[in-house]
Amino acid sequence: MIQVGIVGASGYSGAELMRLLSARSDVAIAKVIAGGSAGKRVDEVYPALSGVIDLTFEAFKAEVLDGLDVAFVALPSGEGMNVVPQLVDGVDRVIDLGGDFRLRDEDLYEKFYGRKHTASRLLGEAVYGLPELNNEQIASAHLVANPGCYPTSAILPLLPLLKKGLILSKGIVINSLSGVSGAGRAASVEMSFAEVSENIRAYKVTKHQHIPEIQSVLEHATGERIGLSFVPHLVPLTRGIYTTIHADLAASSTEQELLAAYDSFYGDAPFIRLRKSIPEIKDVAYTNFCDIAFTIEHRTNQIIIISTIDNLVKGAAGQAIQNMNIMLGLPETTGLIGKELQHV
Amino acid sequence: MIQVGIVGASGYSGAELMRLLSARSDVAIAKVIAGGSAGKRVDEVYPALSGVIDLTFEAFKAEVLDGLDVAFVALPSGEGMNVVPQLVDGVDRVIDLGGDFRLRDEDLYEKFYGRKHTASRLLGEAVYGLPELNNEQIASAHLVANPGCYPTSAILPLLPLLKKGLILSKGIVINSLSGVSGAGRAASVEMSFAEVSENIRAYKVTKHQHIPEIQSVLEHATGERIGLSFVPHLVPLTRGIYTTIHADLAASSTEQELLAAYDSFYGDAPFIRLRKSIPEIKDVAYTNFCDIAFTIEHRTNQIIIISTIDNLVKGAAGQAIQNMNIMLGLPETTGLIGKELQHV
Amino acid sequence: MIQVGIVGASGYSGAELMRLLSARSDVAIAKVIAGGSAGKRVDEVYPALSGVIDLTFEAFKAEVLDGLDVAFVALPSGEGMNVVPQLVDGVDRVIDLGGDFRLRDEDLYEKFYGRKHTASRLLGEAVYGLPELNNEQIASAHLVANPGCYPTSAILPLLPLLKKGLILSKGIVINSLSGVSGAGRAASVEMSFAEVSENIRAYKVTKHQHIPEIQSVLEHATGERIGLSFVPHLVPLTRGIYTTIHADLAASSTEQELLAAYDSFYGDAPFIRLRKSIPEIKDVAYTNFCDIAFTIEHRTNQIIIISTIDNLVKGAAGQAIQNMNIMLGLPETTGLIGKELQHV
Amino acid sequence: MIQVGIVGASGYSGAELMRLLSARSDVAIAKVIAGGSAGKRVDEVYPALSGVIDLTFEAFKAEVLDGLDVAFVALPSGEGMNVVPQLVDGVDRVIDLGGDFRLRDEDLYEKFYGRKHTASRLLGEAVYGLPELNNEQIASAHLVANPGCYPTSAILPLLPLLKKGLILSKGIVINSLSGVSGAGRAASVEMSFAEVSENIRAYKVTKHQHIPEIQSVLEHATGERIGLSFVPHLVPLTRGIYTTIHADLAASSTEQELLAAYDSFYGDAPFIRLRKSIPEIKDVAYTNFCDIAFTIEHRTNQIIIISTIDNLVKGAAGQAIQNMNIMLGLPETTGLIGKELQHV
Repeated sequence: MIQVGIVGASGYSGAELMRLLSARSDVAIAKVIAGGSAGKRVDEVYPALSGVIDLTFEAFKAEVLDGLDVAFVALPSGEGMNVVPQLVDGVDRVIDLGGDFRLRDEDLYEKFYGRKHTASRLLGEAVYGLPELNNEQIASAHLVANPGCYPTSAILPLLPLLKKGLILSKGIVINSLSGVSGAGRAASVEMSFAEVSENIRAYKVTKHQHIPEIQSVLEHATGERIGLSFVPHLVPLTRGIYTTIHADLAASSTEQELLAAYDSFYGDAPFIRLRKSIPEIKDVAYTNFCDIAFTIEHRTNQIIIISTIDNLVKGAAGQAIQNMNIMLGLPETTGLIGKELQHV
Repeated sequence: MIQVGIVGASGYSGAELMRLLSARSDVAIAKVIAGGSAGKRVDEVYPALSGVIDLTFEAFKAEVLDGLDVAFVALPSGEGMNVVPQLVDGVDRVIDLGGDFRLRDEDLYEKFYGRKHTASRLLGEAVYGLPELNNEQIASAHLVANPGCYPTSAILPLLPLLKKGLILSKGIVINSLSGVSGAGRAASVEMSFAEVSENIRAYKVTKHQHIPEIQSVLEHATGERIGLSFVPHLVPLTRGIYTTIHADLAASSTEQELLAAYDSFYGDAPFIRLRKSIPEIKDVAYTNFCDIAFTIEHRTNQIIIISTIDNLVKGAAGQAIQNMNIMLGLPETTGLIGKELQHV
Repeated sequence: MIQVGIVGASGYSGAELMRLLSARSDVAIAKVIAGGSAGKRVDEVYPALSGVIDLTFEAFKAEVLDGLDVAFVALPSGEGMNVVPQLVDGVDRVIDLGGDFRLRDEDLYEKFYGRKHTASRLLGEAVYGLPELNNEQIASAHLVANPGCYPTSAILPLLPLLKKGLILSKGIVINSLSGVSGAGRAASVEMSFAEVSENIRAYKVTKHQHIPEIQSVLEHATGERIGLSFVPHLVPLTRGIYTTIHADLAASSTEQELLAAYDSFYGDAPFIRLRKSIPEIKDVAYTNFCDIAFTIEHRTNQIIIISTIDNLVKGAAGQAIQNMNIMLGLPETTGLIGKELQHV
Repeated sequence: MIQVGIVGASGYSGAELMRLLSARSDVAIAKVIAGGSAGKRVDEVYPALSGVIDLTFEAFKAEVLDGLDVAFVALPSGEGMNVVPQLVDGVDRVIDLGGDFRLRDEDLYEKFYGRKHTASRLLGEAVYGLPELNNEQIASAHLVANPGCYPTSAILPLLPLLKKGLILSKGIVINSLSGVSGAGRAASVEMSFAEVSENIRAYKVTKHQHIPEIQSVLEHATGERIGLSFVPHLVPLTRGIYTTIHADLAASSTEQELLAAYDSFYGDAPFIRLRKSIPEIKDVAYTNFCDIAFTIEHRTNQIIIISTIDNLVKGAAGQAIQNMNIMLGLPETTGLIGKELQHV
C-alpha cells in the first residue's frame, strides 16, 4: 500500500487529490494537512467525501509526514517553499503543485512572484513534472515541480512544433481562458458568483507568473530564444482551461509535417489526444486528457492551435498523480483513465 | 431638483440605486456614503458608472446629509439602526432598505436577528414600505422601512387571498429561490462562483429573519393569526427571486373569486402583473414588476401560486424609489417602467 | 465478461451509462444503439469518449442485441414501450430508464403521459427498480423499470417516515429543482443557454407525470392513501435535483424516532447518506449518492426534509447500474463509489 | 412622433430594439413583423413586455411598413437581402442589422456567407453604420448596414492606431469571446444550456464571415492592406463580447501617442470609454458603451488592447438606434445613456 500525505489538502487541488486517490485500492491517504481547517473532519469541509474519506485535517509539522512514500504539497505559491525543504529528508518523494520550484532562475522568480525565494538551493534539484517532456527524469526524481495549469495547456501544443522548427520561435500569441477554480478556494469579492457570472475579465496582462514558466521550459527544451505573449482571462466556468495559440508557420511547413510532429512526440502519450474537430472544455472535464487541434490559416500563413485541459486534473492533481505513478514505476495511467486508441 | 443621498452606496442595493437614479433628470445624487470605499471614486468601484456618475464615496457623518430631500440607507441589517437615528432630524425623508425597522416587535427582532435593537423608539414611527399595501401611510411617512426581498415576493401574492378569506390561514408553505446578489457584496468562500455554480443549497431553514416579517405583515393586514413555513434556497443566479406557495383553498373558493381578489387589490397597481402563463425570472429581471400566477390543484384542493421579482429592483432599490415617488407626491412609476395594460 | 447493450445511447442518460460502464473491467459494452446517430462513431458525438470507447452507433433491431446479458433502454418515455417488448425474449435482463413501465395502472399512464400504453402486458412483470425498496425483487427480475429522477429524490426521504407513521399521509408538499440535463439532449429554444441562464421556471404544475409515480410507489409501499403536491422547477444547472419536502408530523414523533426510522431503513444502504448539515448538489454531483437531511419546525409542527441526487447518476444511469449489479448478484456498489462509513 | 417598424422583431436583436424603443416618448413602434410568430401577441412570446408593448406580430409584407419613418431589419443574414429591397422605396430610412449589406464586394460575400447576393445593386448605396467612423454619411444615408458585433468590438480599438500608423498593419491577432445571444434565438442542441454551461468552444476558425468585414472596413478607412487573424469563441455567457487584440507596435510609438490617438478620435464620441483598468463585460452590459484599454508589452514590443461591448446593444440594437438618431438629426445619445465625462 502506497502511503501518501497531502499538505494543503483543503484547497481545490488538495480536494481533487483526495477525490482521485480515494478511489484507488493501492493507495492509502495517510495524512491530510490543512492549517486553516486543522481539527475539522474532511467531510465537514467537503461533504462530498462523506463516507468516502474518514480523516481529520491536521496542522503542518514535518515529522507528521515522516516515512511516507509520497507527499503532495498543494499550497499557494510562496507557501510551498517553506514546507518543501522540511519534507525532502523525511519523505521518499515530494510533488509540489505550487509555483515555487518551477523556475530555475531565482531572479526571474523574484521578478514575477514578487518575493525572494527562500529555498533556492532546491531549484536545481527539482524536476519539472511534465511527463510528456521529462518522463525519465521524473522517474528518478526526489522532488517534482508539478507544472502550472496555463503552462501545461500552452507547452504541450507548442513543444513538438518548436522542436521540429515548424513554427517561428518569435511572435507567438497565447490567449487562455480559465475557470475560477484555478484561483484556489478563497474568500474574495472578485471571485464571487455575482461578479463572475455573465462577466469576463483579462488579468495580470504582461505580468502573469506563468509567462516565464512557459518561456523557460520551451527555451530549455529547444535551446532557442522564444518570443511569446500570454494573456489569461477569467470566464464564468468552474473547471477548465481553453488555450488558443497563434504562431507563424516556418516557410516550408506542411500539414503532414505538423501532424507527423505531434504523432512522433505524443504517439505513446496516453493523455494527449490530437483532435480533428475543435476541442471543447466538456470533452476533458474531470479527465487527465489534454486535447489538441490545429488549423492552418493560409491567408496569414499562421497556425492556430487550440488546446484544452481540466485545470484541476491535467493542470494540477491528475498530473501530480501521473507523476507519482511514474516515480513509483507504476503504469502512467493508474487511477487515471487513459486513451486506448490513437488519432481520435 | 430632488437632492438625495445614499448611505451604503457601494453595496449591490446602493449601486442599483445609483444606476436607477442617475438616469433621472429630476433627481440629483448629492452624496454617496460608503465606509469601506471612502475616498474612492464611484467609477473606480463600479466602472460601469464611468462617465455616468462623477462622485467620490465619503465616510458617514450625519451632518453630511443634512438638508437633503431623501436619504436612502442601504446598509446590512444591524448597521441601519445605528445610522437612521442620526438622519431622521436632518433629512426630510429616510428610506431604510435593511431589516432593522420592519418588525414592530423588538423581541421578535432580537430572536431572529440575534442582536438587541438599539433604536427601538423609531419602530413605531417607521412605515412598512410596501406600496401596494400601505400607499397612504407611505405618502405621509418620514421614515420608511423598505420590505425584504423574500417578503415582497411572498406577501404580494398572499395578501388578496387572505384578506378575502379564499385560502386557509394555516399550513401555508412558501419556498423561495434567490440569486446571490441578495446576500450583498461581500467576500466569502460560500458565495464564490466555484461554490455556487452547478450547486443549490437551502439555508437558515426554520430560522430566516424574513419569516417573522412575512408573518407579522400578513397578520397585521388581516387581523388573523397566520401559520406559514418559509424555506429560502440559493441557486446559481445573480438576480431574481422565484417564490412558489402552497395554500389550502377555503371550501367555497372558485377560480373567478381568486381572480377577482387579485383584480380588486392590484387593478391599479402599476407593478403587479397577474399572469396566465407561468412566470419566469427573466420576465422581471431589471424591472420593478412583480409577476404572479396561480394554479388550482383540485386533487389536493390547494392553490399553487408563483411570484417573481428582481430582488435588487422590486426587492430593494426599485421599491425604495417607488416609495420615494409616493413620499414626494410624484407618479409612482417615475423613473421606473410601469404597465399600461391590464390582464396580461 | 458481462456483455451489455445500450439502446438510446446518444442521449444524456445513455452517454452517462457509457461513461460509467467504460471504466469497468468486468463489463464489455457490446452494442450502442441510437437511431438519429446511427453510423456515427461514439467519439464523433461525444468527443469526451475519444480513445475510451471504440464503437459506432447502430440503428435499432432487436436481433442485434440477442444473447446479451443486459440491455439498458435509455429512450424517451413513449419510445421504450415499442422497444422493450422486442428485447425481453432475446436478452437476459432488461433495464428501462424511461417512464413506460413504472406505473402499473395503464389508465393513469394514459392520463399523465397523454398516450395509450402499447405494451401493457409487461406492466405486471416489471419491477420498480428502487434498490433501497425492492432489492429482492430486483435480484430476480427480468425487466426493471428504473425510477424517475424526481421520484427517486422524493420517495427515498419520505418512505421510512411514512412506513413508521411518523408523518401524516396527507398534505405533503414536494418542491423540486432540476438541472436541464433531466430534459434530455434535444434542440429547443426553451432549453437554450440564453433562456435558462439567469432564469428559473416552474413547469407542468399539477400535471407532471412523476406525480402518480411518487404517489403510487408510496401507496403500494405503505398500503395507505397518500395526498401530495409536487412542483418541478427548472434552474440554471446542468446536473442535479434538489428536493425540499414539507410534511406534518404525527402527534408524537420525536427527533430520535425520525433518526431511528432512517437508520433502520438505510443503515445498510450504501448510497444513502443521512446528513446533519444541509445537503448541496455539489456533494452528490457525479456520484450515486442520495443525501438526506431534515429539520423539525416546531412552530408549524412540520418536518422539512431536503434530499439531493445527481439526476443522471442516482436519478438514471447510476441507479440502472446499481440495479444491474443486483440482478447479476454482484456487490451493489461495483463500479459506483459507495460509502464505507455511517452517520456522516 | 417617430413611426418605426421592426422586421424580425421576435429574435434577440428585435426584442432588444423593442425593449429600448418602448422606453422612448418620441418613438412609436408601429409595426412588429415576425414570420414565425405572426398572429401572436408580443407579450406571449416576450412576457417581459407584458403591459409595456400592446402589439401583435404580423407576417412580412412590404406595404405594411409603407410610410414609416424608420424600418429596422433584424433578420438573420441571408434573409435581409430579400426584405430590404422591398422596403427602400416605401420607408424613409432603413437600418439592416444583418450582414447582407456590410461588404461592398459581392464575391467576398459569396465566399464567406456561402450564398450568392441577390440584392447587390444596393451594396454601393448602403452606408456602414459605425457612427464613430461614418457619422456624416450615416446622417444622410437612406440605407444603413449596421455593423456586426465582433467587427464593432475589433474595429473601434484598432482604427485610431492604424490611422495614425502607431501599429503595424500586418500580424494583428484578434481573439473574441462571445455570449450565446449572438447566435440568435433558435433551437439547437449546440446552444442548449447543458452544452454551453461549463464549456468553451472556438468556432468557424479562419472562416468566420466577420473576418472580411473587419478587414475591409479597416482597409477602406486606412487605405492600406491589413493582415489580421480573428478567432471567435463561445463562452458560457448570454450577453457581451470580450475582444483581446495583439498588434506589433511601430518602431517609435509611445504610450502618449497611443493615448493621444484615442483621444483625438473618440474625445467627442459619447459611447467610447478609454479605460485605465482592464475592462469587464459587466461594465458595459445593457449599455451602448464600448470600453477600451491597452497595455504595452515591452518584452515583445506589442500592444495588447482589450475592448468590451454588449453584443445586443452596441453590437446590434443600441448601435442601430444610435444610427437612427443620427439619421433623424437627434442627439446621438437619445434613449441611450452616454458618458458626460472624459478619461474615466
